[in-house]
Amino acid sequence: MSSVPAIGPRRGRPGRPRLVHPQLNGSPREQILEAAARLFTSKGYAATSTREIAEAVGIRQASLYYHFAGKGEIVTELLAQTIRPTVDSVARMESLTDDPDTVLYLVALTDVRTLAKAPHNIGWLYLAPDVAQVEGFDEFTEARSDLAATYARLAEPIATSEVLGALGPVRLGEKLVHNVEEVIGLRNAGRRIDLDESASIASSCLRLCGIDQARIDLAQKTAATLLGQLDQVDGSAGGDARCG
Amino acid sequence: MSSVPAIGPRRGRPGRPRLVHPQLNGSPREQILEAAARLFTSKGYAATSTREIAEAVGIRQASLYYHFAGKGEIVTELLAQTIRPTVDSVARMESLTDDPDTVLYLVALTDVRTLAKAPHNIGWLYLAPDVAQVEGFDEFTEARSDLAATYARLAEPIATSEVLGALGPVRLGEKLVHNVEEVIGLRNAGRRIDLDESASIASSCLRLCGIDQARIDLAQKTAATLLGQLDQVDGSAGGDARCG
Repeated sequence: MSSVPAIGPRRGRPGRPRLVHPQLNGSPREQILEAAARLFTSKGYAATSTREIAEAVGIRQASLYYHFAGKGEIVTELLAQTIRPTVDSVARMESLTDDPDTVLYLVALTDVRTLAKAPHNIGWLYLAPDVAQVEGFDEFTEARSDLAATYARLAEPIATSEVLGALGPVRLGEKLVHNVEEVIGLRNAGRRIDLDESASIASSCLRLCGIDQARIDLAQKTAATLLGQLDQVDGSAGGDARCG
Repeated sequence: MSSVPAIGPRRGRPGRPRLVHPQLNGSPREQILEAAARLFTSKGYAATSTREIAEAVGIRQASLYYHFAGKGEIVTELLAQTIRPTVDSVARMESLTDDPDTVLYLVALTDVRTLAKAPHNIGWLYLAPDVAQVEGFDEFTEARSDLAATYARLAEPIATSEVLGALGPVRLGEKLVHNVEEVIGLRNAGRRIDLDESASIASSCLRLCGIDQARIDLAQKTAATLLGQLDQVDGSAGGDARCG
């Protein structure tokens, strides 16, 4: 699996970051990402300029370029943020249990939460025609394919022969990614992605594999126990995902 | 169910349509829609001007306004085209068979084909943030909700109690619409939506209802027979849907 691009501050660029609006939270870099996500998802990518993003943060345009090469790098990083947490969680989920149904359920649940927590529903951006032309978009497409390949690897041993016969593992993996991306549309429609909704989307990933209801119920129950344990460790995994 | 907007030529507007490029097919109105679909899905909606659309067709900008009030009306009509054929087919599918599994399968299959045949993958457009702000987009959102309500009506009597208990019919209907919209992503990735792919997406709609494999197989088999009959009548329903 190739890694999801992690874009750091630009080195060797002229200028220094200016003071930012004191009422905003986070580093200048985080504030730029937050403002860009808001503008891209409200006005569209093409209609948003780096100048507007800088103004929204309260820095000069030149200062924005200290952190990012341009709009393309900002949107690429925002897109990477919709995939990276899920990819990073897979090994951990696999270490928690030997039950493959539960692993797939937990990974799907993490994926739902990643999309549910993304600022301003940035998962939406990858669906925009103008964003698809951005230099670096190929890296996101590749990262998303890697995520689909992970789903395929987890689903292949547990899917029914009928489902695998009709789809093959690769297409099944893609279908599971698409299934989780329902979160994006729900958020656009103003829906809250609560625990029940998250669970139902994760369950439907198992259902698409042809897994019967008894096994889905068992995976859901096992996953709930494991999430409870995780909550005690890091206090975040069990949190309620909300609309942005 | 409210109707999908059917936007006709503008009446009482100044100017007359000019001669269009003779190598292009269809009425001026159809040519405008075709060129707009190509430009919107390649450059994005915001980045495309009515002047560019007119130039692509070979007419003056003023002539374009004879047919459409502007970009918004063009994109709204394009979006309506991704839903109208499916909505129009539901009563016909219900008249073909008393088996509710098969009806849902046939409606999903029609929906897959509608999206697969749409010029330049125009289904993509409704996912773009800038398109969502267009005046008239609410009508599309409403038409899409009506389509989801139709899926809900067809799915409710056949879904398992576990699926209905977790989702309720409304969310189940939305989930089935989202499931069919996988076609949009597949087309963007350059995939061919052939008969096997269409069948697998329609089957997965039944699977999401919790229907078991034996019933899915039966519905698929019954639907194939009915499609054969339809082909003999209108020669179109059984056609192979291709990528645009």
